[in-house]
Amino acid sequence: MKDIQSQSDPRNMAIDRVGVKDLSYPITVLDRANRTQHTVGSINMFVNLPHHFRGTHMSRFIEILNAYHRELHIDRVEDILRLMKKRLQAQEAHMEVSFPYFVEKTAPKSRSKSLMEYQCHYIGTLREQIDVILGVDVPVTTLCPCSREMSDRGAHNQRSVIHIRVRYTKSGFIWIEELITMAEESASSPLYALLKRDDEKAVTENAYDHPMFVEDVVRDVSVKMEKDPRIFWYRVQAENFESIHNHSAYASIEKHKTGIV
Amino acid sequence: MKDIQSQSDPRNMAIDRVGVKDLSYPITVLDRANRTQHTVGSINMFVNLPHHFRGTHMSRFIEILNAYHRELHIDRVEDILRLMKKRLQAQEAHMEVSFPYFVEKTAPKSRSKSLMEYQCHYIGTLREQIDVILGVDVPVTTLCPCSREMSDRGAHNQRSVIHIRVRYTKSGFIWIEELITMAEESASSPLYALLKRDDEKAVTENAYDHPMFVEDVVRDVSVKMEKDPRIFWYRVQAENFESIHNHSAYASIEKHKTGIV
Amino acid sequence: MKDIQSQSDPRNMAIDRVGVKDLSYPITVLDRANRTQHTVGSINMFVNLPHHFRGTHMSRFIEILNAYHRELHIDRVEDILRLMKKRLQAQEAHMEVSFPYFVEKTAPKSRSKSLMEYQCHYIGTLREQIDVILGVDVPVTTLCPCSREMSDRGAHNQRSVIHIRVRYTKSGFIWIEELITMAEESASSPLYALLKRDDEKAVTENAYDHPMFVEDVVRDVSVKMEKDPRIFWYRVQAENFESIHNHSAYASIEKHKTGIV
Amino acid sequence: MKDIQSQSDPRNMAIDRVGVKDLSYPITVLDRANRTQHTVGSINMFVNLPHHFRGTHMSRFIEILNAYHRELHIDRVEDILRLMKKRLQAQEAHMEVSFPYFVEKTAPKSRSKSLMEYQCHYIGTLREQIDVILGVDVPVTTLCPCSREMSDRGAHNQRSVIHIRVRYTKSGFIWIEELITMAEESASSPLYALLKRDDEKAVTENAYDHPMFVEDVVRDVSVKMEKDPRIFWYRVQAENFESIHNHSAYASIEKHKTGIV
Repeated sequence: MKDIQSQSDPRNMAIDRVGVKDLSYPITVLDRANRTQHTVGSINMFVNLPHHFRGTHMSRFIEILNAYHRELHIDRVEDILRLMKKRLQAQEAHMEVSFPYFVEKTAPKSRSKSLMEYQCHYIGTLREQIDVILGVDVPVTTLCPCSREMSDRGAHNQRSVIHIRVRYTKSGFIWIEELITMAEESASSPLYALLKRDDEKAVTENAYDHPMFVEDVVRDVSVKMEKDPRIFWYRVQAENFESIHNHSAYASIEKHKTGIV
Repeated sequence: MKDIQSQSDPRNMAIDRVGVKDLSYPITVLDRANRTQHTVGSINMFVNLPHHFRGTHMSRFIEILNAYHRELHIDRVEDILRLMKKRLQAQEAHMEVSFPYFVEKTAPKSRSKSLMEYQCHYIGTLREQIDVILGVDVPVTTLCPCSREMSDRGAHNQRSVIHIRVRYTKSGFIWIEELITMAEESASSPLYALLKRDDEKAVTENAYDHPMFVEDVVRDVSVKMEKDPRIFWYRVQAENFESIHNHSAYASIEKHKTGIV
Repeated sequence: MKDIQSQSDPRNMAIDRVGVKDLSYPITVLDRANRTQHTVGSINMFVNLPHHFRGTHMSRFIEILNAYHRELHIDRVEDILRLMKKRLQAQEAHMEVSFPYFVEKTAPKSRSKSLMEYQCHYIGTLREQIDVILGVDVPVTTLCPCSREMSDRGAHNQRSVIHIRVRYTKSGFIWIEELITMAEESASSPLYALLKRDDEKAVTENAYDHPMFVEDVVRDVSVKMEKDPRIFWYRVQAENFESIHNHSAYASIEKHKTGIV
Repeated sequence: MKDIQSQSDPRNMAIDRVGVKDLSYPITVLDRANRTQHTVGSINMFVNLPHHFRGTHMSRFIEILNAYHRELHIDRVEDILRLMKKRLQAQEAHMEVSFPYFVEKTAPKSRSKSLMEYQCHYIGTLREQIDVILGVDVPVTTLCPCSREMSDRGAHNQRSVIHIRVRYTKSGFIWIEELITMAEESASSPLYALLKRDDEKAVTENAYDHPMFVEDVVRDVSVKMEKDPRIFWYRVQAENFESIHNHSAYASIEKHKTGIV
């Protein structure tokens, strides 16, 4: 059979990224409390394609994944990127894995335990050197400072989501759980799957006592990012699904800290 | 050319519904304030298929739509259903149109005007007789009565959506705007695109003064449905995107009022 | 503290379903090849609420789930429904669990193995008796018989999804894998995550040799449903994401087989 | 009332973007065939916020939009950005508008006319100078060259979407319709809402005669971008919803052409 993908291409046009997208796959991730956690990943795998090749070999991406059959640990992404570069004869390999991750939370008063889900992201790019971005989307409560200040009673509040993405130094290591804590401590209140009546009272009053604009949220997370010596780049986005509007309030900060690599 | 669709089928299996789904199309709808409103519909069109035909003729659904080129008024759905039955030789024709609809709202204190979007639904089925369901999804604020009762300050609240579907008598007519009002009057507060500082104070205090469980919302809407002599069937669903949880609270009531057709 | 939810309600309006919706939770399901499989469920839990109670107790739904902490086997749904009825003093309990499920597939020529994901659904309702619906959404290829018949070369084909839902007799048991096979054998071709060049040739020619309208798909699945003595109710829907249109072709059949309970 | 938003902020942290997101709004856009077209936009409006202000004034974004009440022409985006900068005292204003847009297509043989929907994007950023990105997502058919080459009959094909984004010179002007043509001429076939039997034959054979990898698609579009003297930056992405897999094939090229501003 003719290998059409390996034919030469006359258009003189290199392709930045080519590969497979939105592949669903069972994965295993490191869990600070339980060593490992089984979950389900949505995976993208891309390489660059020099101008002289007509196509990449899509099946090889899947073959590489299969070598880690049902045991795809997130810490193997760097190995996978090396294999991608080699087997697909590429200068650059890129892989994105997104997955739900569960953390046991303890309610503030009853101490009842329940599981909260956080959507996580692991993004690796390998050229000469490896570049890794770790991310997590943390749902929280925000209570509006302006509404609280003006109103004789109550204050509008709503579910929000804080998107954190970080790059960290090679000598460092960051748990997903640490990023979640940074986000939850920058909101009016964390969320819980299970709250009893005493807890609901505590959570309500705590949110009222910590009013936060969407601007406050991204700034408070960013201040924590600035203080953490492991982190040298971050992007923080917050979105409030406003309870008094049918649109969102949004804010974002992205920064490369100078003097660190 | 052979007409494969018209071939006979040996499997002796009638098909309930067959046709086109998720077709995007510009439509025009009746607007109580402005006579008509231009918007974009997502359209499903189905007919039944007797066991002896192998296939329906998909292109005819689009041809029927095209007769109303860029002037598809929602009140022509019954005509379209008649054409579908005839041209596709069916005993039953079914059409669903979903579309965003904009209503001008006035803020409570500043009287500022702004547009709110509501997702609407028009569902028609024609057998011997026509059956029409009118629907609208109304985003609102709900404030938790339990949180308010227990807490020394504040009360958690959130964006919710109320889904209303109704069947009404032939002699009646119901404006989308009437269903929206029924929903908004059954919540802690309506939503607005534009609220100035005085408005935000009023909306916050009004929500605090009208705490509503998801159960209260579906009951209050249902009480209005029971009182309206035009409506003989309704389904009311409410979903709160809880500000203290990462899941929703949900309630639903569906009823066929006896003694009315 | 006052128990607001247990207050009496004057509106005389019973609620069909009330509870928690879209709760994400790690679950374990039976796997024909590997005994069990870890995955992530999206869970709805509802009960009815008599007219005389103002509200249900939302936190109890989560407490019931938590008794199965990280070990929620899908075959415990009936136990959970009994607990829901009891602890929430309801006449009816309802639970829906949707989850991705992975099955190892073998490519037709190279015999290469890879994992395919299928979205599954387990829906239980307990009144006096238990009612269970098992479901799976199976992505497949369909190739258009009309396009093949008319065209001198090629035939348009596309990804489709077949939605199957069944109720089966108490003495029976049905594996998810069996429903998947019924769907895949009713399409032009199954899908695979990994296909080498020989496989791609085989899959292409096999699809060309088995052209299927969306009508053919739902009929062929339904014929299998009729023949299976364990199944007494089924709903089959097929949707083709047409490669020549920007809308879908759709067909559905729903049937309660007579003479079986 | 205290103006909390205008308070000074001690965190010394400037915010890149803050504003409103996912606001639905009726808009009017230029239409090459019909002068203007009514549609519905999803709108984001952001400004930067210097480190010394605590918050932006969210309601002003909506007030600015309202000045164009139900007559928001897409060519007024630059005016809106100037107003945003001024009224929110910002150095930078950013606005994104996404909307469905309908173009009448003529079937290749029957000459039947029907409407195709394309999702469009208009993204403006104003600092000292205005920066505009025009975008459109074009659904097409792609037929696999490898499958065609190897198979004795047929070739797998599927719906794909080509995402084009361009920046063009101030002296130039580009119609959405021109970008759509560039995309459709770079695929195996365009899509149509209405195809009669003769058309379906022509479209099937035409796709078979123009097999395209996802890599071919992004290269062919990019070649057209390179040749167009009005365009000085482009990003082209193509995604095939593979008919033989449950994942997508994907490719992308982004380039700033040298020597042009």
